[in-house]
Amino acid sequence: MEAAVSCLAEHGWAGSTVAVVAERAGVSRGAAQHHFPTREDLFTAAVEYVAEERSTALRDLFHAGPAARPAVVEALVDLYTGTLFRAALQLWVAASNEEQLRPRVTELEARVGRETHRIAVELLGADESEPGVRETVQGLLDMARGLGLANVLTDDTARRARVVAQWSRIIDTTLA
Amino acid sequence: MEAAVSCLAEHGWAGSTVAVVAERAGVSRGAAQHHFPTREDLFTAAVEYVAEERSTALRDLFHAGPAARPAVVEALVDLYTGTLFRAALQLWVAASNEEQLRPRVTELEARVGRETHRIAVELLGADESEPGVRETVQGLLDMARGLGLANVLTDDTARRARVVAQWSRIIDTTLA
Repeated sequence: MEAAVSCLAEHGWAGSTVAVVAERAGVSRGAAQHHFPTREDLFTAAVEYVAEERSTALRDLFHAGPAARPAVVEALVDLYTGTLFRAALQLWVAASNEEQLRPRVTELEARVGRETHRIAVELLGADESEPGVRETVQGLLDMARGLGLANVLTDDTARRARVVAQWSRIIDTTLA
Repeated sequence: MEAAVSCLAEHGWAGSTVAVVAERAGVSRGAAQHHFPTREDLFTAAVEYVAEERSTALRDLFHAGPAARPAVVEALVDLYTGTLFRAALQLWVAASNEEQLRPRVTELEARVGRETHRIAVELLGADESEPGVRETVQGLLDMARGLGLANVLTDDTARRARVVAQWSRIIDTTLA
């Protein structure tokens, strides 16, 4: 799963096949193809698996007790700046041009998106019964996704840190 | 230029060639190739041209005088939800895997990004000498980019309208 995600992030959808990933992971092509008959199967499963792992890690990170909102905002943004986001982005863009891939990626994205929203609400201590709170959290995750995109071609770390610091203050004030 | 942008948005980088665009635009392949010797030339020029057109249109829209901030936020988000954004996204993701394309798209993105930021500051009446204001505007544009991405596979119009309404209020309060 990790090999498939790295492969997708580095080589894009066009350069990603079951055979390439099998070699990278040190398993036989036959074994890989037994579990994942098509490349659609392999790469959507891999992105979902790694996304779940990241979600679990994020929950564990803040398991000890209530965290300061800026730390939560930073951790949420971090979800969108690594290899997983790059891989998901490749899949996402490929799905926009390939009818065969589209429904699967749409469904995957909806599942991962709902789970990330749930975690964000929980860790931010946001009360969604208050008007506007749901949209505040959604907009924050949209911003995180946009920051992820800004980091694909260049290292955007320094600018991102300043934006995240300011938006943490805004989120904190808005949710208070 | 419009034909090249539409082609890129619909077929992605892999499906976009000078020949395909020439046919679509109703010009000869030779003429197209005379102006744009390589596909990198054609598609980066097209995205830049259409981005400039959109910027000019945005300035013109609010030329009459100071606009309400929610209308400005909505218009800024609109920049990221159409064919131009889809085309730019295809180029962006292709550049992440192709060394040949990367420096050109990086440079293009920086130029377009600076110009969009300038327009946003101007139309929002934001005073960047105040601490945090620059990052507030940058985060808003990152959010707009994230909203654009959320609209690539599915029609996200209804959710986006609610997020934009809420964040218009937040931005207005923050900048006031």
